[in-house]
Amino acid sequence: MTIKLHGSAMSTCTGRVLITLFEKEVEDYELVEVDLSKGEHKSPEFLKHQPFGQIPYLVHGDLELFESRAIARGVADWYAKQGTPLYGSTAHERAQVEQWLEVEAQNYNPSISSIVFQIVFAPMFGKSTDEAVVAAETAKLESVLDIYEKRLSEKKYLAGDFFSLADLSHITYSYYLIKLAGKGAIYDSRPHVKAWIEGLFARPATQKWLKLAGYAQ
Amino acid sequence: MTIKLHGSAMSTCTGRVLITLFEKEVEDYELVEVDLSKGEHKSPEFLKHQPFGQIPYLVHGDLELFESRAIARGVADWYAKQGTPLYGSTAHERAQVEQWLEVEAQNYNPSISSIVFQIVFAPMFGKSTDEAVVAAETAKLESVLDIYEKRLSEKKYLAGDFFSLADLSHITYSYYLIKLAGKGAIYDSRPHVKAWIEGLFARPATQKWLKLAGYAQ
Repeated sequence: MTIKLHGSAMSTCTGRVLITLFEKEVEDYELVEVDLSKGEHKSPEFLKHQPFGQIPYLVHGDLELFESRAIARGVADWYAKQGTPLYGSTAHERAQVEQWLEVEAQNYNPSISSIVFQIVFAPMFGKSTDEAVVAAETAKLESVLDIYEKRLSEKKYLAGDFFSLADLSHITYSYYLIKLAGKGAIYDSRPHVKAWIEGLFARPATQKWLKLAGYAQ
Repeated sequence: MTIKLHGSAMSTCTGRVLITLFEKEVEDYELVEVDLSKGEHKSPEFLKHQPFGQIPYLVHGDLELFESRAIARGVADWYAKQGTPLYGSTAHERAQVEQWLEVEAQNYNPSISSIVFQIVFAPMFGKSTDEAVVAAETAKLESVLDIYEKRLSEKKYLAGDFFSLADLSHITYSYYLIKLAGKGAIYDSRPHVKAWIEGLFARPATQKWLKLAGYAQ
């Protein structure tokens, strides 16, 4: 049964789901592009499926699901037996994956999404970048990355010595921050974080997303 | 093997885990109180276990785990066969629970935690309440609650006609907002939300937390 993913390949949250599908080698999916520039995500038809007016949402048979981290968890579970294992191999490892997924959602994402909004999106909407917000959120993000640097000096990935959904969940916003917002220096000064991010970007699933989104050839 | 939960019974995030333990009828646990007023959560010893200096963290045999929503998910899975089922009974229901858990984390929590901080905690730290922040975040929270009102007019709980971890995750901050910040009116004007919240507060597990935290007799 074909998975239909309603979103935009270019977006960070749709990207999170696409990379998860690619890691799990799910071939039977269709991306239904939502045209944000036309406000399609705020249309009455869209809001029937996603009442908050945010992309993406997924339709899989009689299941409709939104929130990209919830969809990614679902895909990781539904296709547990194929592709890259995304929850480790034991209950303890799964718990560690959930811990670092929450760190991404609660500690990493709020700052990085705010910086990206100010530098990349605010100008698109005719607003000026609020440099005070950028400075404050960059300081917070650097504190978080100091903790990541220590963790990644001890373990190859966040949840342990295995790639997981927790690492994956960091890819799209980090790409935006480095490549579109020009803030790569905060990774460069932390060698283990830098090696980790470069490893995440080099994964075939990430490269497949970058091509689909038009960010890479 | 005794679970040791390091945190503060009064706090919203420790409360989320305690209520989960109570719903799952886990008796073999010990709460190790962390004295926030003495800054124990920023001590070198604490930071060895929770590098972000936040409560709570849990120790269960050789597993150490932080982030309250990750701990709650872990408890719900480890004790799947006892107490209240917190993920529904099918893979589809579990996906819906994850969706609404993410809505809580991404749409509900940012606004409600900001309002509670401004009204309840800022004065404790000798700061004045920023009324502009309260107004802006209250408007956002009301938009979220409008979507909840519609959902809860169709289903008894967020993920469907069954109580789940998604509902549970809303309890502690909602209690703070209503009882400590005096903002219950935004629930009162939405009858399905109001009935839902009252039902959540009336659950024996919530009552057990309120007594332990000193909020109820």
